[in-house]
Amino acid sequence: MANFELISRLAQDTGGKIVLLVMDGLGGLPREAGGPTELEAASTPNMDRLAQEGSTGLSIPVVRGVAPGSGPAHLALFGYDPIQYEIGRGVLEATGIGLEVLPGDVAIRGNFCTVDENGLITDRRAGRIPTEEGAKRVALLKQIKLPGVETIVEAVQDYRFALILRGAGLNGSIADTDPQVTGKPTLPARALAPEAEATAKLVNQWLDEARKVLKGHEPANMVTLRGFAMEPGLPKYKDVYKLKAACVAVYPMYKGVARLVGMDVIQTDSHDTPADEFRHVARIWNDYDFIFCHIKYTDSRGEDGDFDAKAKVIESVDAALPILLDLKPDVLVITGDHSTPATYKAHSWHPVPTLLWAPKTHMPDRAQAFGERECMTGALGQFPAADLMPLALAHANRLVKYGA
Amino acid sequence: MANFELISRLAQDTGGKIVLLVMDGLGGLPREAGGPTELEAASTPNMDRLAQEGSTGLSIPVVRGVAPGSGPAHLALFGYDPIQYEIGRGVLEATGIGLEVLPGDVAIRGNFCTVDENGLITDRRAGRIPTEEGAKRVALLKQIKLPGVETIVEAVQDYRFALILRGAGLNGSIADTDPQVTGKPTLPARALAPEAEATAKLVNQWLDEARKVLKGHEPANMVTLRGFAMEPGLPKYKDVYKLKAACVAVYPMYKGVARLVGMDVIQTDSHDTPADEFRHVARIWNDYDFIFCHIKYTDSRGEDGDFDAKAKVIESVDAALPILLDLKPDVLVITGDHSTPATYKAHSWHPVPTLLWAPKTHMPDRAQAFGERECMTGALGQFPAADLMPLALAHANRLVKYGA
Repeated sequence: MANFELISRLAQDTGGKIVLLVMDGLGGLPREAGGPTELEAASTPNMDRLAQEGSTGLSIPVVRGVAPGSGPAHLALFGYDPIQYEIGRGVLEATGIGLEVLPGDVAIRGNFCTVDENGLITDRRAGRIPTEEGAKRVALLKQIKLPGVETIVEAVQDYRFALILRGAGLNGSIADTDPQVTGKPTLPARALAPEAEATAKLVNQWLDEARKVLKGHEPANMVTLRGFAMEPGLPKYKDVYKLKAACVAVYPMYKGVARLVGMDVIQTDSHDTPADEFRHVARIWNDYDFIFCHIKYTDSRGEDGDFDAKAKVIESVDAALPILLDLKPDVLVITGDHSTPATYKAHSWHPVPTLLWAPKTHMPDRAQAFGERECMTGALGQFPAADLMPLALAHANRLVKYGA
Repeated sequence: MANFELISRLAQDTGGKIVLLVMDGLGGLPREAGGPTELEAASTPNMDRLAQEGSTGLSIPVVRGVAPGSGPAHLALFGYDPIQYEIGRGVLEATGIGLEVLPGDVAIRGNFCTVDENGLITDRRAGRIPTEEGAKRVALLKQIKLPGVETIVEAVQDYRFALILRGAGLNGSIADTDPQVTGKPTLPARALAPEAEATAKLVNQWLDEARKVLKGHEPANMVTLRGFAMEPGLPKYKDVYKLKAACVAVYPMYKGVARLVGMDVIQTDSHDTPADEFRHVARIWNDYDFIFCHIKYTDSRGEDGDFDAKAKVIESVDAALPILLDLKPDVLVITGDHSTPATYKAHSWHPVPTLLWAPKTHMPDRAQAFGERECMTGALGQFPAADLMPLALAHANRLVKYGA
């Protein structure tokens, strides 16, 4: 793992332009013994050429053997030790539906539940009401006002919603209000530290109001709150790397994580193809030193267990790649945040194929194509994902020498 | 190095079955330039097939360049940072002859020595008396009783013996009583911390008695005590990994280390062949999630400097391997705890060939056989030995995802 403080100290604000292209869940496994992985099976003439010219390797998202969620996996790609820096559940939920979480905010995951006339929970998920029923109740919750604090409520999916408190002096050290079992009342918000007492009191006011406005709206006539979390106060790209950075992503969660490290989030359309995303990159090219471009559907098709469809997504990225290459980036990194083998239908721990192309500075290796097994013998070896940013900065001549 | 606390947090008690097959001192070196290593020279059709199908790599027992003893080498294989966690010398000596060391015990290495009529040491090793002479004196030492504390004494080899104190409130922070030179008296046991004062006093009582019972039994008419150590209180497999684990080993020391991490130690015969050991594994197969199986003689023949004999031991393991494979383990790891090249006649620091076979989850690589040079291009790369347990757990679906 790179020394983050050291890299921050060495980073300078001059040098080349960097593109970090992340295909979510890129890494895969063979479908049958002796066969190719998704990436190996995909026809990727552009990436294969870049692999022949540049450096390849395999990145370890967190530590060997650990499959990461999207939050820690992206923090690592962004150069932050994903064990030291954590994004709380409430913040991930809120950013995941596109809510902006600002410094000082407390973000919370909410569930609708059913309580009986004595206030005892009879269903912790309110009969799993559909999203549109949840949205109707969220409209009621939006009416609740707290003194001196702004409240933002949005429906997530089914019985879930996100709540953000915004104001001065808030603190998120608060225990979940979900008793985890039926037959008990919802718990009051309880401060886990003295400095959270005032916030807990406000939350309890909000909960009292919620009970009133939801009364009679069975089965979703009460709420529980979980995963209280503060905006994590992550060091920002412009401060640690001296980079003016932007994010081109389609899914809200990745925009949210990028915003938390100080990237500008570029407006996209939720139906954007990889080619569309690359055109966004081209559009903003002159305004940024660093652009993070995120492709979601490799992961989605892996989670579906659809090997061929995942390979097709990779092929569509490869086909669109000339749009990025025409920009002549000084450094182009192509990788994933973790592996999502179609055979596994879930995030896995397998190291992630990585390609670093920087024609003025890269060390060529013997890889002849972009794929797991070619990357095993590459110039970058196997390395912690959090080392990728220092490598990208170095290849862009953005790190000064350490010591005399 | 894996984050041990993180792995403990992610481990779950459901998933596949794991076999960790350790050939002690497996790694080797070519006998002549251009030639094969012991493992490369051995005919191992079964392991070669597993290497073709699964993942290979090289493990670094402690840190690069450091040859480990058996204690730290096995702690690392078991997933414990061998620098953070130490097994004291006295505990290793006692477990090495099959003594059970329990929590709260103080274990000590003893040497017989020769003292003159003034109590000054004339020979620190009592003329290197043979083991049977040592055993006669140990019978005398067994007569010594201490108030409120059980004492266990057993002969080790030649002039060496092991001593265990068992009772409440003992503390092992005690300095060696060997002055390291002749012409001086043996030292009294001296506490290195206030909480060891009472134990030191008991040890001095025992030493006074030892001097009395050994009087006239020249050349071994006194003892020195060294390597005072407490049972190390290592976190246990069932707690950190949620594994019900067993050890099948022939040599006492490996049973002892396995017991210290909470494995059940299976009854074996000291003449058991690898095939016999694998049959023990088969016998207990339904009762455990994890079985550590230890083969001693690869190391012994390496220490002898007998290249061909070491290769023959490896071949006998390979020939017996179908007994293990018939059990259909979900994860089979084949590795060594360190290298013992026959040309070197000692433990060495060279990374150790490692094979991880888990047909549902392994990443195949291009290794065509199990050997040092094939493993260099493998899917596991070079990795700290303590990362092997997280990898094995992951491949058995025994680790949950980190973060959302």
